[in-house]
Order: sequence, then structure tokens, then C-alpha cells
Amino acid sequence: MTDLRWYGWGYADKTYSLDQRPAAWNFLRAALDLRGDETLPACDFDSIRLRAPRLTSAQLDALRQIVPETKTDTRARVLHAYGRSYRDLIRLRRGEIPCPPDAVVYPANEDAVARVIAFCAQNDAALIPFGGGSSVVGGVEASDDASSRGINVSESNTVTPRDAASDRVTIALDLARLNRVVALDEVSQTATIEAGMRGPDLERELNARGFTLGHFPQSFEFSTLGGWIATRGAGLMSTRYGKIEALTQSVRVATPRGIVETRAVPATATGSSLLQLLVGSEGALGVITRATMRIRRLPKTKDYRALLFKSFADGVAATRALLQSDIVPAVVRLSDEDETRSFFSLREESPAWMEVVARVYLRVLGGFGYSFERGALMILGFEDDAAGAKAGQAICKSHGAFDLGRGIAEVWLRDRYETPYLRDVLMDHGVLVDTLETATTWSNLEQLHKTLAVTIADAAAQTGARALVMTHVSHCYRDGASLYVTFLARMARGKEIEQWETIKRAATECIVANGGALSHHHGVGYEHAAWIDRENSAVGMDALRAVKHALDPHDVMNPGKWLAARPASGSVDAAIEYQERFWNLPR
Amino acid sequence: MTDLRWYGWGYADKTYSLDQRPAAWNFLRAALDLRGDETLPACDFDSIRLRAPRLTSAQLDALRQIVPETKTDTRARVLHAYGRSYRDLIRLRRGEIPCPPDAVVYPANEDAVARVIAFCAQNDAALIPFGGGSSVVGGVEASDDASSRGINVSESNTVTPRDAASDRVTIALDLARLNRVVALDEVSQTATIEAGMRGPDLERELNARGFTLGHFPQSFEFSTLGGWIATRGAGLMSTRYGKIEALTQSVRVATPRGIVETRAVPATATGSSLLQLLVGSEGALGVITRATMRIRRLPKTKDYRALLFKSFADGVAATRALLQSDIVPAVVRLSDEDETRSFFSLREESPAWMEVVARVYLRVLGGFGYSFERGALMILGFEDDAAGAKAGQAICKSHGAFDLGRGIAEVWLRDRYETPYLRDVLMDHGVLVDTLETATTWSNLEQLHKTLAVTIADAAAQTGARALVMTHVSHCYRDGASLYVTFLARMARGKEIEQWETIKRAATECIVANGGALSHHHGVGYEHAAWIDRENSAVGMDALRAVKHALDPHDVMNPGKWLAARPASGSVDAAIEYQERFWNLPR
Repeated sequence: MTDLRWYGWGYADKTYSLDQRPAAWNFLRAALDLRGDETLPACDFDSIRLRAPRLTSAQLDALRQIVPETKTDTRARVLHAYGRSYRDLIRLRRGEIPCPPDAVVYPANEDAVARVIAFCAQNDAALIPFGGGSSVVGGVEASDDASSRGINVSESNTVTPRDAASDRVTIALDLARLNRVVALDEVSQTATIEAGMRGPDLERELNARGFTLGHFPQSFEFSTLGGWIATRGAGLMSTRYGKIEALTQSVRVATPRGIVETRAVPATATGSSLLQLLVGSEGALGVITRATMRIRRLPKTKDYRALLFKSFADGVAATRALLQSDIVPAVVRLSDEDETRSFFSLREESPAWMEVVARVYLRVLGGFGYSFERGALMILGFEDDAAGAKAGQAICKSHGAFDLGRGIAEVWLRDRYETPYLRDVLMDHGVLVDTLETATTWSNLEQLHKTLAVTIADAAAQTGARALVMTHVSHCYRDGASLYVTFLARMARGKEIEQWETIKRAATECIVANGGALSHHHGVGYEHAAWIDRENSAVGMDALRAVKHALDPHDVMNPGKWLAARPASGSVDAAIEYQERFWNLPR
Repeated sequence: MTDLRWYGWGYADKTYSLDQRPAAWNFLRAALDLRGDETLPACDFDSIRLRAPRLTSAQLDALRQIVPETKTDTRARVLHAYGRSYRDLIRLRRGEIPCPPDAVVYPANEDAVARVIAFCAQNDAALIPFGGGSSVVGGVEASDDASSRGINVSESNTVTPRDAASDRVTIALDLARLNRVVALDEVSQTATIEAGMRGPDLERELNARGFTLGHFPQSFEFSTLGGWIATRGAGLMSTRYGKIEALTQSVRVATPRGIVETRAVPATATGSSLLQLLVGSEGALGVITRATMRIRRLPKTKDYRALLFKSFADGVAATRALLQSDIVPAVVRLSDEDETRSFFSLREESPAWMEVVARVYLRVLGGFGYSFERGALMILGFEDDAAGAKAGQAICKSHGAFDLGRGIAEVWLRDRYETPYLRDVLMDHGVLVDTLETATTWSNLEQLHKTLAVTIADAAAQTGARALVMTHVSHCYRDGASLYVTFLARMARGKEIEQWETIKRAATECIVANGGALSHHHGVGYEHAAWIDRENSAVGMDALRAVKHALDPHDVMNPGKWLAARPASGSVDAAIEYQERFWNLPR
């Protein structure tokens, strides 16, 4: 396996430079008030000193009896200490890894997984299932503070956080070796796949048989089937293929109480959904070991193109009209004016003659009221659906869209897994960069979009920075869509995490207070945990915490994350206060 | 409101006679070995003597303070004693109603619902939410034996059935007055609707605004939104519109611990699904008071037609090909050979000249290998989708289908809510008649279909009866479909219920042992409760029972149903033995 970038995204030998994008830095410098001298280099890996693994040699021997491939070296522990959130990358660059996992195990099969769980229960250790490690919500963090915040069910059955047990051993369970397609049913179009299989391997095997899962999240290169299911992920083409919970026919989960497997049938009326209880459980109820997934024949034709609307509002109206007809696009990705402008400013350098042609083209477009400065760019893709493509494009044109052809869409498709690499380049240059997402109904979408953008900009201003906030609509439904927000700002050096928390907290509060989902596909982890009672109501969360206690009575599984956080009361202040205490941060 | 048939289906002044269907009785007599002298008349309603309501006058006063419309008369109590299963109808005809509810309350709003729940908790009473009362799995039964079998969570947190408390007061909560469309969001295409609204009222209000929910179960005339959601129902057009769990954007539930409301957003990644925990909860976690539903514009065009395949296998292949393309029919309903033959034998009498034409037509068809005696009839319907209809019909023809035109499909559409009335006519004539359903993958469908039909016939033979077993495929998915089985047999007089149980038990065991869902849309109630641990695994059910305890610690809500039954071990025999003990029946 090619070496991974320990402090950032992806392969160490791969990057996404802005050097061939001549307008990029000028645009960013102006938009973010960059002064040109900001850098935040990563520390020297060899300077990192982790605390010694807290396993006794007897414990380590016992663990190696179960999984000979148990690692305690610095590299393995660093690579499994965090996910890939902005908070994580800042800490990694600084070399701040006070609570790495004590060991990383690579079990080869479900039996070994179950035995590692039993080992943890017997040794009062915490176990963190680890797939691709691409969580941006702290879902795989091996922190003491996080891992010790488990739940206890007292006699009166009220759930309260238990006291921190900072000496609790923490083990990361990497599922990389559970990576087989176990069975493929061509008749029913389903495949039973082990949870640790990564996107590219999974698609390669399915493609060889003529099928696809159709799940292509931005983390595709590294993330795993189990991680997608555990977090309720969404692929870029989810409008056609469905979110992962719709693609999952059944799951198999190793819990501390034993194996739970749901029935592999297309639909049921057998009470509350056990399947949808396990899907999204974020490692807190057990380790997903395999799942039977709905797959489809590989598409024979694709039609991806870009369209330009005169305004985001026009584009939203078209997107809604499209979704509420019976047309099913693979992708409808509509950028707002700010994202459209940025997309254009960050474009690749073209040969000089093309730049001349482009300028003429843009002037002509401008004459008709279209502009990359004030317009809204849409990527509209269809697969195996020429009639739908035609009808969808017609709807867009009836809302004033100009068809830009296939070129831009092809660049987007080509680069869709590359942009996470850009984050590292921006951070190298002292730029705070993060994304967040929500989903809401069509009637609430534009209001939430505006409020959220203003909120993020205001919060950044509080930290002394001018923010660039860009949003797109994607993952569309008949009743609404997700909003995906990217924000950039000049780093507040020395206070990078506090700055980011100020913005993240304001944005999350804005989403929850304004009718958005706490998350559409990133999950809860601990970053969103302080709001989960408001999302589900305190009583609703009591019900889910009861499930946690029933399946994981010793709080072995991924403790301290979404099912653990419990504000003293349901109020916002309490939630925020809780989060601050949780992170032990100054107000 | 027109008077309801207290011992059977629907309106008392409505029936579905076979008298105008000349071939019907001859066909049934031959198929079932009827001797012509069997009848099972309903007893005289006025002869029914219920035990006195067990509420003290102080309790009754307190209840009437909350809900002035609290009834204790015989008619209200009889109408809320049972659902509408074969077992229920037999007991009603016999006048066997040992455990009617002690009172029936008709709260006008959610606040009153919550206060009734609190009353029950304070008075150790059981509360049974009651919508249309059309459950065929015992989901609304007010039986002592059932209602007293609640759960307790002992200190060690293992869930065990608590002892029968045969003197526990039982109250039926009829939601008929929660019957408003609260809000309709035309932009997002959602409607917030109170749970007690019945199908016809709901559709009338939505239709007036240009919308439809598209949920048309066979019980449509009487069943309610809350009942559909509580049981995970499916409408006849679910292949286009989706099962109720897909149509439900959010629910609001009054639980003994307080109101739980899920977020009204199109999709989330916020942990385990609280929504899908409440959907399907069958009244055991609380009372669904309202829900926000995904609605659609009324279709402008419809194309429903009948096709005849040379065999069921050909029809299944066509159905699968259709579903695994991107074509979305509203209805694909494929009858097997036995159901096709019966459908034809039970058809309406036509004018003599038409019978002559029909005979010629059939002879010509027969010349090409098509026959109602050996073929498989499909109803194939499309809405607002002329291109899909054309493509779908082409796929069917490529699998050898003969297009019978629109006539038969129109009769099916016209009669779709009428056939439940036929059950009463058949029971009048001493015919056991029941339906059951499951869902499975395409690769398992034909095997399960055959095994199930043979199992039912064999079980009927054990009771001395020849069964007519008819199956159709409906509610189709990319990965499989539901199988809906109707079976008829001559009643074993005096042992009607034991006979039925023998068949039902064998059929359910066959489904569970052969890869079918325990239920696709009827639910669990108590009839399927003995198998629920095998469906979800014992550990999985522990998790769901923990939810029950968290939300309903005093076991007020619909006790003794799906979340209560717990076999001593996970074995089949134990499950069956448990069910027998449950019903106190001779082996």
C-alpha cells in the first residue's frame, strides 16, 4: 500500500496544487485577507513521542493470541488516533496526540472481531471500530476524554454519563482485512460484502461482474462499506442510487451481547426496524462485519453536463421541479453564487488562445444575463436514461438555464476525489477550511441557506477573519435536499481550534434552530453530540441509549460519542456548556 | 356514520355476493369438497352479554374528566374488542368476547391522548390505540391474556414476561377524532396529518388540493394513517408510491415518557433512526398522534391493463426484468396459476352473447398456448408514465405475455376494496378463508412460493380439509417482492380456530424457515409474536425490548403484543409451545 499522509488526506505522494490555477491565490488572498506569510507546517513525524501503550504484557499477549496482527508502533497508533476533521488535522500538524489508541488490531474475520470485543469487555477496555478513518465528526477518535464518557444505566433507568476513567485502555479495530465480496446474487441484484472493503476494491470486484453499488462519497478512495453504513453516508450519485441506508438490505453486527443479523429481504412489517437501528449506529452498538447490499447493473450510458442559471433561486426552482417530476438524475449539484464564482476563480490555467475564446464566450453569455460572477452552476448527470436527461435539461432550460456542455462536468467528475487533497495545501498556507452539511425541505431551503451563510461569516468575523462561504445543493429528494457548505478563512494562529469551534458551533446551532437536519451524511461522532438530544428529543435519546445499554452493557463500543453525550438539560446553553467542558476549552 | 358490521367487514348494508357469479359456487364446492349444508351464522347481537366494565366509578369519572366522550356500552366495547382476523371473526360470530375493553375513549386532541396515557399509568391500566381496527394479526385485541403479558426489566436487565394480571383494566383509545390535515406544504410536497384520519377522508382532502398520498391498502375505507404507520403497511400502488415507512417524513408520538417528535427533513445521518424505531411500533411505544407525509401531485393519466402469461414462472421473470430496469409501475400484481384459475371461475356473469364471444376468444388464446386454467394473470398499472407503460408492456411481451386490454384491470380497480366483504359471505357458507403475506428476494421467490403452497395444503389436509391456495406477487422491488397468499378450506366445524391455527402456524413456520419476511405489511401483533425472536434474533429483540422499557416503563401501551412475547429459548418448539400456552389451547 502506498504510504498515507499521516497529518492530512490520502496518499503522501499525491497533492492538489493550486499552482496551475493562476487566478486562485489572488482570488483567495483578496477574499480572505491573506497576507502571504501564513503557514502551518506539520511537525516532523519523528519528533512525535506517544505515551507508552497501557496494555500489560499479559494483556498484549492475550490480544495477540486472538489477533496476531496487533500493532503498537507509533505509526499505526498515530494513523488510528483521529479521523480527518479540521480539528484532527490541526492536532496532527502540531503533533498533539495525547491519547492515541494503545494498540491497533487487524482481525481477519468476524470470529476474531467477536473475540476482541470479549477481550475488551473482560479488560474494561474501549474498542473503536476503524474503517477508512475519514470521519470528520470525531467518530473514530481514540481520546481518553471521549472514550471515557460512557453511559451507565442506574437503578432508576436514567442514563447518566459516567465519570472519566482516564486510564482506560483503548483499542482501535481496523477492519482492513475483512475485505471480501462474500456472495453476489445476480438474480436478486444483491451482494454480501465484508465491512472493511474500501470503495475502489469493492467497485472493482462488482464491476468485473457487471454491477455497481453506486455509492461514491468524496472519501471513496479510503472509506469502507462498514463506515458508510455506520455513519449513514451518501454518495455523490445518491439521487439515483440512494443513500447507504436505502442500499443496505441487511447487516450483520458483532455486539458485546453476540451476533445480530437482520433478515435479508426486500421489505418487512415486523415492528420497529432493527436494520435501521443498526445502520447509523456509528460503532456504538457493535462492529458491522458484513452487509448485503442492493447493487445494480453498470450503466451503459452517461450524460453529465454543466448548466448555468442566472441565480441560485432559479436553480433551486429547477432542481425542485426536476425532483418532483418522475425524472431521476444521478447527480444534481447546484452551486450558489459564491461557490460558482469560486469554482471559476480556482479553475485550471488554459492555453492563452483558449483564455481569449473563453473571454469572448463569457462576454456573449453576459449579454444574455449569464455570469460566473453572479450565476449558479449546476452539474446535472444522468445514467442509462437518455429520455430523463432530455426531459431534465428541458426543465432546467424552462427555468432559464444555459447549457455549458460536457466539459465542466467532466472536470468535476475527474476531480471529485481530489479536492480533499486541496485542504492540506490550503492548511499549509494558513487557511482554515472545512465543510458541513445538512438537509431540509424545499420550502425551508433558501431561508436556511442564507441564514447559515451569514451565521458562518459572522462567526468568522468574531475570530477576526473574513470568511468565504460557499454552498451547493446536492443529494436531492422529492421533499427537499441537502445543503453542503464549504467555508474558508485566515487561520487565527495559535488559536486554530478555538476559532474553528466558534464557527462550527454557530453553524450547528443555526442549522438545528432553523429546521435543518443535524447532519445529512457526515454523522454525529462527538462534534454533533451536544445537539443530538435536540435533534431526537431527550425522550427519544433515552430510547436509543437504552438500546446501547442492552447491547453494550459495559460500554465497550466506541464510547463517548453520539450515544454518550448528555447535556444536563435540554437547553442550548447546557449543550454548549457541555461541549466546552467536554473539550475543556476556555469560553 | 353508516352502521358497521359488528361481526365482519365494513358497512352492515354492503356485501359482496357470489350470486351473480354463476360459476363461483360450483367451482368452490368442487375445489373445497363443500357439502352445501355448512353455515356459520353470527349470533344475535342482543344475546351478547359482556362482563361489567372493571373501572370504578371514580376511575370512570376521572376518565370522563379527560375525555367526556368515553363509552362503556356493549356496542362500543364489542367493536373495539378485536381486529378483523379470521380468528377474530370466528369469535365474534360465536359471541365469544370474554375480555372486551372496559371503556372506549375518543380523545379530541393530542393533549387528551397524553392525559389518557397518564391516567392508565397511574391506574395500572392497559391502553390500546385503535385506528380502523382492521388488524389481522391481533394488533388491537383487548384480551386479558394478551394485555397482561407485559414485560419487566429485572435488576440484571434481562427482560422476562411478567405474570398475568387478569384484573388489569383495559382501555381502547379510538383515534377517530384526530382526523384533520393540519398543514399542507405544496412546495415541499408534504402534509402533516392527524393519525386518526381514515383513507377516504385523507385522500378527499389531499385530492381537493391536487395531491395524493398514494397509499391504498385493501383496508383503505376504514384504516387510518396512524394504523398504517404503526404496522408498516403497504398500499396496492406501493411499487410507485412506496411503503408507508418510505412515505413518512416524520412522526409525532405520545409516549408514557412524553412526546417524541422526529425531525421533518428529507434525510439524516444522525445515528440510529428514531423515525424507523417509531414507525412499526404497533402501539407498544406510544400513540402516534400525527405524521408528516410525503405527498405527490395527483396523476393526470393512468394506464392499467391485464396481461396473461403462459406460466407464473414467465410472469415472475418479466416482473423482475421490469423492476430491475428503471421502469416504475404503480402496480405489478401477478397471480399464480391457481389464483388465475380462481379469478376466472369467480368472474361476474356476462350477457349470453358476451359469454359466447368470450368462449371463442378463449379458444383462440388457447391455440396460442394461453389459458386461464394454466396461465398467470398480471395487472400492470402505470400512472403519469406513458413511456414507462410502453416499455413495461414490451418487457412483458418479450416474456410471452398476451395483452388482455383494460377491461379486467378496471374490474380489479373497481373491486379492490370489495373483496374483504366476500370473506363474510364465504364464512356464512362455512368456508375458512384467510390471507397471509411475506416478502423475499427474487432468487428465493419461486422456491418459497411452491413450498408455502404445499405446506398450507398439507396443513389443511391434517385438519381434514382440502385447501384452495392462491398466491400473487405484488409490492415489487429491485431485489425481490412480496408474496400474498389466500387460502380457503371447508371449516372444521366446532374446531374452527384450532383448524386455522394449524394452518397458520405451519405457514408461518414455513415462511421463517425458508427465507421469507415474517410479514411484509400485516405486522406482528400477537399472531406472529412467537416468531419475532427468530426474525430479529434474541439479542436484537432485547435491544427493542429495552426501548419499550425506556419509553413505557409501566407497560401501559398495547401490552402483550409483539414486544412482549418471549419464548423460553430461541427454538421453534419453544416458540410454538409459548404460543399455545399464550392461547391456552390444546395441542
